[in-house]
Amino acid sequence: MRIIRYDDAGTIRWGVLGTDGTVRAADGDPWTGLRPGAGVGSVDQVRLRAPVTPSKILCVGRNYADHAAEFGNPVPEEPLIFLKPPSSIAGPGDEIVYPSLSGRLDPEAELVVVIGRAGRRIPAAEAMSHVYGYTIGNDVTARDLQKGDPQWTRGKGFDTFCPLGPWVETEFDPSDVLVTCTVNGEVRQSGSTRDFIFGIPALIAYVSAFATLVPGDVIMTGTPPGVRPVQPGDTITVSVGGLGELTNPVVAEKP
Amino acid sequence: MRIIRYDDAGTIRWGVLGTDGTVRAADGDPWTGLRPGAGVGSVDQVRLRAPVTPSKILCVGRNYADHAAEFGNPVPEEPLIFLKPPSSIAGPGDEIVYPSLSGRLDPEAELVVVIGRAGRRIPAAEAMSHVYGYTIGNDVTARDLQKGDPQWTRGKGFDTFCPLGPWVETEFDPSDVLVTCTVNGEVRQSGSTRDFIFGIPALIAYVSAFATLVPGDVIMTGTPPGVRPVQPGDTITVSVGGLGELTNPVVAEKP
Repeated sequence: MRIIRYDDAGTIRWGVLGTDGTVRAADGDPWTGLRPGAGVGSVDQVRLRAPVTPSKILCVGRNYADHAAEFGNPVPEEPLIFLKPPSSIAGPGDEIVYPSLSGRLDPEAELVVVIGRAGRRIPAAEAMSHVYGYTIGNDVTARDLQKGDPQWTRGKGFDTFCPLGPWVETEFDPSDVLVTCTVNGEVRQSGSTRDFIFGIPALIAYVSAFATLVPGDVIMTGTPPGVRPVQPGDTITVSVGGLGELTNPVVAEKP
Repeated sequence: MRIIRYDDAGTIRWGVLGTDGTVRAADGDPWTGLRPGAGVGSVDQVRLRAPVTPSKILCVGRNYADHAAEFGNPVPEEPLIFLKPPSSIAGPGDEIVYPSLSGRLDPEAELVVVIGRAGRRIPAAEAMSHVYGYTIGNDVTARDLQKGDPQWTRGKGFDTFCPLGPWVETEFDPSDVLVTCTVNGEVRQSGSTRDFIFGIPALIAYVSAFATLVPGDVIMTGTPPGVRPVQPGDTITVSVGGLGELTNPVVAEKP
């Protein structure tokens, strides 16, 4: 099932997207139960928003061995975890704003795990039972600020630096899917989730060893090799095999 | 005015604490308007919870020159910003759980700014108009994990590592108040906010240059010198002159 959030005349609602591209409004929420109701038209007729509103966005650095190597970083022995603030979330089609404070902006294509059931100190063997579904994410990074600041908060945390969507897919096997980033039609990043250094159960176990996961929280699973900067005017599409595509244009920050 | 959140038979409610120690229940919320109603008894009779539910907890490292020096760190040229996850919040009196993964747990006494009005790219000259009030915080830190991990997410982010409270004070001058940490009655940390490297307007300008601040967000303003580790069984009291005291016991994590 594909779960969306969409703008209904200024109110953000849950919805369910059918295989024929039609949207049905839904009451409730995905965590306690969605009740699909009336059809509201085709997915092309509604404005999709980010399909989740996480209380925390947990990100993993250097989770593909090749990507770690391209920046000269060693392969980590433990997952490298950082946070993006909820204020950084953008929806499908929303503009990514290139900050005037930065001189290098990189997209990072990622598979995103959506938590559906709360838990703390979750054993890896039970981790998948806490997953609600999957979506696509772009861990947009002001690389110069990330490298220059003592912590990554600012370099990873600008408004619009976390596009998510277009939907959450609940029926999905994440074990060997292609994650790609295309800029203006040119494929730049590409890698399979089978090359994860830390798989999804290990990531859930690691983060829940320190923080309670709650429904709607997301874990961004890291980005494959090929990262290169973008410029205002570029259009970024992140795709994950079987999940669809997440497209966002890059614009310059207004003075 | 002192704003609290308290547990009313399992429901968390807003309330207003009078100077005589009586609590009045309140409808609405602090950002759009609180409407104090009936008295519900003395503050000693209600269980206080953290007085805010921030979407993001923005923290400042090394914001007292003396504290930077005690760990051998240079005085930063820009604010050093990191995030704690909302799952780390604890209320007044709640237990701080000493993780079995850590061998050194440090409390850090802090004055906390509570945002009341949304904003992005807020000029320092206008910053104070976005402040709703102030509370007390403890930036509990697993120092060994903070130093060993590439990012501070885990070392700063365990459940219970962010006690906040006991209330939000809306009438308060933060410019020269004493921030102290007392462990089992012994004063360890002490410093005045007049020794901030970056004042509150500068901090609000800096963080809002990358992230939209929304009502309820908090900025933890850094900790004064004297940081030393605690053990299970210890009781930590953070006090800020004019704001009151925030006390939490330390317990060992259950196996």
